[in-house]
Amino acid sequence: MHKTEKVNLATAFASFSEHWSPRIAGQLNGQKVLLAKIKGAFVWHHHEHEDEMFLVHKGHFVMEFRDRSVALGPGDFLIVPRGVEHRPVAEDECEIVLFEPMATLNTGNVVDDARTVASPKQL
Amino acid sequence: MHKTEKVNLATAFASFSEHWSPRIAGQLNGQKVLLAKIKGAFVWHHHEHEDEMFLVHKGHFVMEFRDRSVALGPGDFLIVPRGVEHRPVAEDECEIVLFEPMATLNTGNVVDDARTVASPKQL
Repeated sequence: MHKTEKVNLATAFASFSEHWSPRIAGQLNGQKVLLAKIKGAFVWHHHEHEDEMFLVHKGHFVMEFRDRSVALGPGDFLIVPRGVEHRPVAEDECEIVLFEPMATLNTGNVVDDARTVASPKQL
Repeated sequence: MHKTEKVNLATAFASFSEHWSPRIAGQLNGQKVLLAKIKGAFVWHHHEHEDEMFLVHKGHFVMEFRDRSVALGPGDFLIVPRGVEHRPVAEDECEIVLFEPMATLNTGNVVDDARTVASPKQL
């Protein structure tokens, strides 16, 4: 069953504190809506078959690509196409909303003991 | 080609003024990211095979269902499952971000001279 309850982003982000531990806040059309708090550097990775969207709710982070970087703040979003290596880096804590296919693994082609989350928790 | 340029929601919403005229702000995994300014009442409709997500950027609106209504404000999102009749109503102008499949028609199973937009413009 699908739910039709609204979710408030500020309330939802206040419900957890771990970094790099995305929560599933919704599902639609085979995609998931993830909320994540990030701080520090993630691992370089790519997703073979999936595009990924990052929307900043609060704070700032930099999306590093191999040839450039994109600085993102509140209300900015960025779509990282499949196959493109990327690494999010946040100097201070940043709250982001992600949209990606249900099957997407957060570290893509890489398995990292500290960062890979095989089964994100429900919000 | 996919783009990897960031989009700022406030800047993007400032770039157009028409109501009920969604702009495509991004595409990923067969889904589109739409920005819409709404004011007044939409038409009752449903989408046979597509779920639809509504995220409020600015302002307020009410999602009416046949058996209840959900009031949404800034930072609230709601997923309307396929098959469920709904009608967004905004007393004052409201800016919303929508996520839905590329093929989704805004008025779903209904064609309305004033509201149906067969080909949304790119941002």
